[in-house]
Amino acid sequence: MKRDAQVQWDALAQSKATRLARATHVTQGKLVDAQKMTSLLEAVLEPGDRVCIEGNNQKHADFLSAALAKVNPQAVHDLHIVQSNIALPQHLDIFEKGIARKLDFSYSGPQGVRMAQLIDADKVKVGAIHTYLELYGRYFCDLTPRVCFIAAQSADRDGNLYTGPNTEDTPAVVEATAFKNGIVIAQVNELVERVPRVDVPADWVNFVVRAPKPHYIEPIFTRDPAAITEIQILMAMMVIKGIYAEYGVTRLNHGIGFDTAAIELLLPTYAENLGLRGKICTHMSVNPCPTLIPAIESGFVQSIHSAGSELGMEAYVAARPDIFFTGPDGSLRSNRVFCQLAGHYSDLFIGSTLQVDMQGNSSTATKSRMTGFGGAPNFGCDSRARRHTSDAWLKAGREASSSSAHAMPRGRKLVVQMVETFGEKMQPTFVERLDAWDLMHKFDLALPPVMVYGDDVTHIVTEEGIANLLLCRDEAEREQAIRGVSGFTAAGLARDERMVETLRARGAIRRPEDMGINPLHATRDLLAARSIKDLVRWSGGLYDPPKRFRNW
Amino acid sequence: MKRDAQVQWDALAQSKATRLARATHVTQGKLVDAQKMTSLLEAVLEPGDRVCIEGNNQKHADFLSAALAKVNPQAVHDLHIVQSNIALPQHLDIFEKGIARKLDFSYSGPQGVRMAQLIDADKVKVGAIHTYLELYGRYFCDLTPRVCFIAAQSADRDGNLYTGPNTEDTPAVVEATAFKNGIVIAQVNELVERVPRVDVPADWVNFVVRAPKPHYIEPIFTRDPAAITEIQILMAMMVIKGIYAEYGVTRLNHGIGFDTAAIELLLPTYAENLGLRGKICTHMSVNPCPTLIPAIESGFVQSIHSAGSELGMEAYVAARPDIFFTGPDGSLRSNRVFCQLAGHYSDLFIGSTLQVDMQGNSSTATKSRMTGFGGAPNFGCDSRARRHTSDAWLKAGREASSSSAHAMPRGRKLVVQMVETFGEKMQPTFVERLDAWDLMHKFDLALPPVMVYGDDVTHIVTEEGIANLLLCRDEAEREQAIRGVSGFTAAGLARDERMVETLRARGAIRRPEDMGINPLHATRDLLAARSIKDLVRWSGGLYDPPKRFRNW
Repeated sequence: MKRDAQVQWDALAQSKATRLARATHVTQGKLVDAQKMTSLLEAVLEPGDRVCIEGNNQKHADFLSAALAKVNPQAVHDLHIVQSNIALPQHLDIFEKGIARKLDFSYSGPQGVRMAQLIDADKVKVGAIHTYLELYGRYFCDLTPRVCFIAAQSADRDGNLYTGPNTEDTPAVVEATAFKNGIVIAQVNELVERVPRVDVPADWVNFVVRAPKPHYIEPIFTRDPAAITEIQILMAMMVIKGIYAEYGVTRLNHGIGFDTAAIELLLPTYAENLGLRGKICTHMSVNPCPTLIPAIESGFVQSIHSAGSELGMEAYVAARPDIFFTGPDGSLRSNRVFCQLAGHYSDLFIGSTLQVDMQGNSSTATKSRMTGFGGAPNFGCDSRARRHTSDAWLKAGREASSSSAHAMPRGRKLVVQMVETFGEKMQPTFVERLDAWDLMHKFDLALPPVMVYGDDVTHIVTEEGIANLLLCRDEAEREQAIRGVSGFTAAGLARDERMVETLRARGAIRRPEDMGINPLHATRDLLAARSIKDLVRWSGGLYDPPKRFRNW
Repeated sequence: MKRDAQVQWDALAQSKATRLARATHVTQGKLVDAQKMTSLLEAVLEPGDRVCIEGNNQKHADFLSAALAKVNPQAVHDLHIVQSNIALPQHLDIFEKGIARKLDFSYSGPQGVRMAQLIDADKVKVGAIHTYLELYGRYFCDLTPRVCFIAAQSADRDGNLYTGPNTEDTPAVVEATAFKNGIVIAQVNELVERVPRVDVPADWVNFVVRAPKPHYIEPIFTRDPAAITEIQILMAMMVIKGIYAEYGVTRLNHGIGFDTAAIELLLPTYAENLGLRGKICTHMSVNPCPTLIPAIESGFVQSIHSAGSELGMEAYVAARPDIFFTGPDGSLRSNRVFCQLAGHYSDLFIGSTLQVDMQGNSSTATKSRMTGFGGAPNFGCDSRARRHTSDAWLKAGREASSSSAHAMPRGRKLVVQMVETFGEKMQPTFVERLDAWDLMHKFDLALPPVMVYGDDVTHIVTEEGIANLLLCRDEAEREQAIRGVSGFTAAGLARDERMVETLRARGAIRRPEDMGINPLHATRDLLAARSIKDLVRWSGGLYDPPKRFRNW
């Protein structure tokens, strides 16, 4: 039984104490002057540190991130950044300068092209691309941050934080850091005597800085109804009548594109006429998207839990506490962890994608961009840890059941891809081979970056119809079901017409007319709101859209 | 565009205000006298309310639960209880008395038999049996509590709560309730001037009661090494050499039986001799099980995040902050949500079960008990939302890859069932048909209650060897691989000898000798600790086992 008396068991705590001691030269107590932030970071950071920068898909600790980009790379270098969303130029500046070197992340929308270049130039070494929950899980396993930067609305003198409606990832990031003797640094928009509610307790926070301007926040969930096309309306009708009504889908998650916005705007009109109020779309895991307003006001949607908030929706959410999760201060309490969990175990996910192959695998990765998938893979997969049943889930499971007498029965999550056969710039959505394969080779990844795997997808909806992959019994049938809704893309034209008709005969492919939908009825008149202004009206003036969405 | 001016959007907030107003007759402010608790509950509860009772697999809000059992069933009835773990008699008393009627839960170990009787007598109507994360997810979707009862170590006058090492489910339960205008009632062991750290902020809490005695807590993770058998040691050797070493498993979750305790106690001896320190078992998602002490002291396990704590491990954990997640007060910060997440996305789960069928489906449900599975299904399933790679995960994925040229490559989680061929009272573990089927019929369930589905299982380890199901190419091969390690059970004797030998020839079945393991070497001498007292010694006296585990 050997034990080494020399082993140190509190190296992290000791190192934290040393770092905090170094910081006393820069600051007194928790409050830090904005102008001294770079000095503070030089005092508390050490080369090779794992640093978590709060960059959700909306809220960003942008001031801290910019301060990090100004540290002396001689003193602070080779950081390992763990971050949900790489969205701002300074997120990559630190790699350009050698301050950071390794990166584990989830999503990199607009910075995807530059990131690809930096990887090429060997400035960024990517650990992995994750889904959100997966990345948070690793914060409590092998990617625990040494230091984290977070953003909040306000703080009191003790360091209690108020995040307001955008709590998002903050609790997960802080908990992982604070309880492994890491250092938590918060930027806030204002210092107050008393925070309206405590979203993060003071004793979890080491430093607070009032940033010169409010933290960056992106309104990524706002879709202008004016841009919704009649093709999208037709697809939305098919989804409502051919999927939501058929399976009785009450609990679900919507992606954030115009396709799903169209569904939301048809609930008070088309779905209402079908007598579906109270029968579909009652419980959602989704941000407060403005296009949900008419469905809420009409009594369709009864409860919404959100991962984050949406700019302009503050007053509306505060006035609808029966629908949203709100605090005693009246504002939304969002939390990406719980929203992702609720959505993961719900009955349906529907979203769009850029490419779908003939096995139903889909990806938003394209040749020149190193992007990621955020929450879609988690919402858009069959949860094998689910044990509770629902009618929708059981029906999907019955449809999928194999012919084997031995097979253990089980339900299935409905995972729907809703895409037009041709996307932007008339690029075909349906392809024989995903660009993800090229990306794998280019960036030396172990696997192609797939967003939703084909064997998790249950339905593909296009303007041509719905392919129900649950009803396909082998790989060949799945392929033809997909080709059978791929329209005039090369993949669609390569269909086996006879097999497609066989699949249609048994409902594995359904055309609009098979569902009693007349495409001529798919007009913008069906939209409950046809403009942002209509949404404001539906909200009784509570919705206050960001300036760039106002054209009146 | 129709809108109803009469619609009320703050019914929950109004109802909460009404309830709180009724409570002012019973109490002033947040503090409630223990003797008035039943009156308080009668004031704030209404028939049909959904009530979440904190009953984790360790910590229980037992005083509040007992107070609920004393309310007047004329006034408070037909409650819908949502609760992780049904463990105490009073949890079922409320159903017996008609105070509660519907139940959604995760696990019901010792109360399983009585629960079955109450279901039979139509006193309990079960909504569903969930996994932990699934149930928490529904708290934010369609099972949001109206009132919750939670347990903490201490509270200050404002209502800030300190959970100490057993934070467990508390944050999830409170967040779901507090932010949907529900009422949060906390029982605490003591009232203090200032809590050692804030685990739940005061403004999330409505009432605090100092319970007459400390909340109930169960030491369910303590396994006495004295009870570990040589068969378990042999199986542990196979797991270490045949699975952990082969795949290079660094991130994993262990079940809580003697089988996995044996693995833990072989790390500093057998695994050390194989040169595996630093190469396996470095990061774990598991409670602070005492049998982990030698592996921690030997430098095997480097980081542990825990769902809850374990009685007697407080001082040891506090002295090992580099290993565990601890707060500024020195004690563990556990959190079942994050532990389950970390484990879900890690590389391996290993646990035991009561029955395994010939497709590899397993269940701990038996004919007379209405039990559940807690966290096992979540740890023990392939995460289809995982996108980051690891060597272990990729190797498992390669082994599983089908022959189809089209198949999208992907990794696989290692899910290992470690069982002796015969269990307690010489009941065969391997069966042609799970008792779960009978349970389904008896309780009118939609599906048999399966703990881990066969298609998620990758390895089955028995004293006869390891079946690697990843290497089986069809249903018949899987069946024979399972029969091939089922020993002298009827299922094992029904094996197709020739097919079993074929499977062995290509490594889908491996006997100890195939791995260079001599069963004669599997002796208790290999255990790093052979008694609870040995564990105390390894801990340098820091581990303080509960009295019932002391025999010296």
